[in-house]
Amino acid sequence: MRTACTGFNTDRAKINAMKYYPEPHLGLEYRDVNAVIEDVFAEHGRGRVRMPPKVYVLLEGGDFRTMPAYVPFLHMAGVKIVNMHPDNRKRGLPTVMAVTVLLDPENGRPQAVLNATSLTDMRTGAAGGIACRHLASGKEISLGVVGSGRQANAQIAAIAEEREIREVRIWSREVANAERLASMWRHLDARSDTLERVCGCDVLVTTTPSTSPIVKNEWIADGTHINAIGADAPGKQELDPAILKRALVFVDDIEQAVHSGEINVPISRGLFRKEEITGTIGQVILGFCGRRSKGEITIFDSTGLAIQDIAIARLAMQKASGIDLPFPF
Amino acid sequence: MRTACTGFNTDRAKINAMKYYPEPHLGLEYRDVNAVIEDVFAEHGRGRVRMPPKVYVLLEGGDFRTMPAYVPFLHMAGVKIVNMHPDNRKRGLPTVMAVTVLLDPENGRPQAVLNATSLTDMRTGAAGGIACRHLASGKEISLGVVGSGRQANAQIAAIAEEREIREVRIWSREVANAERLASMWRHLDARSDTLERVCGCDVLVTTTPSTSPIVKNEWIADGTHINAIGADAPGKQELDPAILKRALVFVDDIEQAVHSGEINVPISRGLFRKEEITGTIGQVILGFCGRRSKGEITIFDSTGLAIQDIAIARLAMQKASGIDLPFPF
Repeated sequence: MRTACTGFNTDRAKINAMKYYPEPHLGLEYRDVNAVIEDVFAEHGRGRVRMPPKVYVLLEGGDFRTMPAYVPFLHMAGVKIVNMHPDNRKRGLPTVMAVTVLLDPENGRPQAVLNATSLTDMRTGAAGGIACRHLASGKEISLGVVGSGRQANAQIAAIAEEREIREVRIWSREVANAERLASMWRHLDARSDTLERVCGCDVLVTTTPSTSPIVKNEWIADGTHINAIGADAPGKQELDPAILKRALVFVDDIEQAVHSGEINVPISRGLFRKEEITGTIGQVILGFCGRRSKGEITIFDSTGLAIQDIAIARLAMQKASGIDLPFPF
Repeated sequence: MRTACTGFNTDRAKINAMKYYPEPHLGLEYRDVNAVIEDVFAEHGRGRVRMPPKVYVLLEGGDFRTMPAYVPFLHMAGVKIVNMHPDNRKRGLPTVMAVTVLLDPENGRPQAVLNATSLTDMRTGAAGGIACRHLASGKEISLGVVGSGRQANAQIAAIAEEREIREVRIWSREVANAERLASMWRHLDARSDTLERVCGCDVLVTTTPSTSPIVKNEWIADGTHINAIGADAPGKQELDPAILKRALVFVDDIEQAVHSGEINVPISRGLFRKEEITGTIGQVILGFCGRRSKGEITIFDSTGLAIQDIAIARLAMQKASGIDLPFPF
């Protein structure tokens, strides 16, 4: 029913409006984000999403990635556009900024534009949380974190929803950065530590932009679960390839991981083969594969999927308030 | 210099703002649009743009295309997101709607979001105008238009900037639609006509979503220039492939045209070869190839390039007024 006497065709106005969400992350909690990320990974495991590989374009001092997808069970299509400029911090800008555009899959109409900068942190954190839920051994864990940036923080927050964290050990090239992050997680007994001791935790997450291995094979004990998050472009890697050979290796998406995940450099050098991938995280969630014993090392190689961006953007739209923008045609 | 006493850090506000342009086409004239499209095609001819092939994702009853590019000489990067839903008119929606997101290539920051629905019409029209400027024979022409939608109108407008139009003949499956378009161009002696007579004009533009040839070889006289606009996805074609064999065939981008342009079906059926393409419109503009005599048939196979979208969006930003959106991070 329409409000009388406004002289305003509300149906038409609805068609011609697009929403903008400047801070869509504010209403979100990892409990809910982890759940939608798990659901969309499972749908990926069932082969019921449409997601071409992300496309890279080189810019000055960085690049940007275009990530389109359609997720039928969420009734949502869209594209995330995200940059990577390693030197941005010097300019007072984040290394990574992102925008997501959502489309109605029935008619292609642009429904919303979201500032996806913090959503990108959260959906990547949630992927790590979900990998822990399904692959980490034990209910209570020590958590090692390599790197101290926004993604290091997101991993701790998302994993804390999935496991009891006994202690957090953080390593960063700059000790002060590790200590700053630790100070935010005092209630989980977080502190700065040596790289070797960080790698000795039950669960290890690596979040650096490294292009050569920084985690040594001899530091990784049997039974460890590793979230390898940092490598998301060709040439990047954080783990000694010898660790891959001792481990069950799971990826978010096989094509993307081979191209740009933790395994991309070892594969290009003949040190690891695509056929050695145990499965996708979606297949793990569906029960097709996974950890079989406490002593196994498991690795989750995360590259970041467009379907995660669609899923978190849709969740955010339900929780956050947006700005109405005219979209005449 | 900052205004005193506002308590507002204007530098920071600038960094944290993104513009939205709901009607960026309103201030634009084809004279200017044709010029920037010509410039960016020339830059493409010089090999100085970065543009991966557009990516298609199938939706319900349609698809959407993601088109990223970086154009260094414009100091602008971005992505156009555009749908194609042939049955949208029944729902009161345009077949094609589009959004462009622009990024600063130095730091990846999202600078602007534009409603690119009408910009898409204009930049495609301008491509046809520029092809006419460089390939059509004679200063005064008769113009044949196959199709009567938004793109048919855009082609007439853009070509009218480049040539004296003596008459316009328009054919559409629905005569009433052809007559409606003709009524908008009475001052150019526009009228509805048979398909054969439309194809007998000096310059012919085809703008339908046809998937089988509708323009017969015997209807095309020597010396004709054809803008083949409609075919922009695999399986689409409007021209009898025999016309290609009589003509010099120019494309906007070789990779895209082979995949989804007018030549895509003839190539897939072995009726035309990639090597038979004479050159790109950029190479024509630079003088490397083109029409050599009055009697030659020339074809411009337009698929629509992301660099056109970046160029027109940048021009529109300079002319149109936008809405300031917060973009906190």
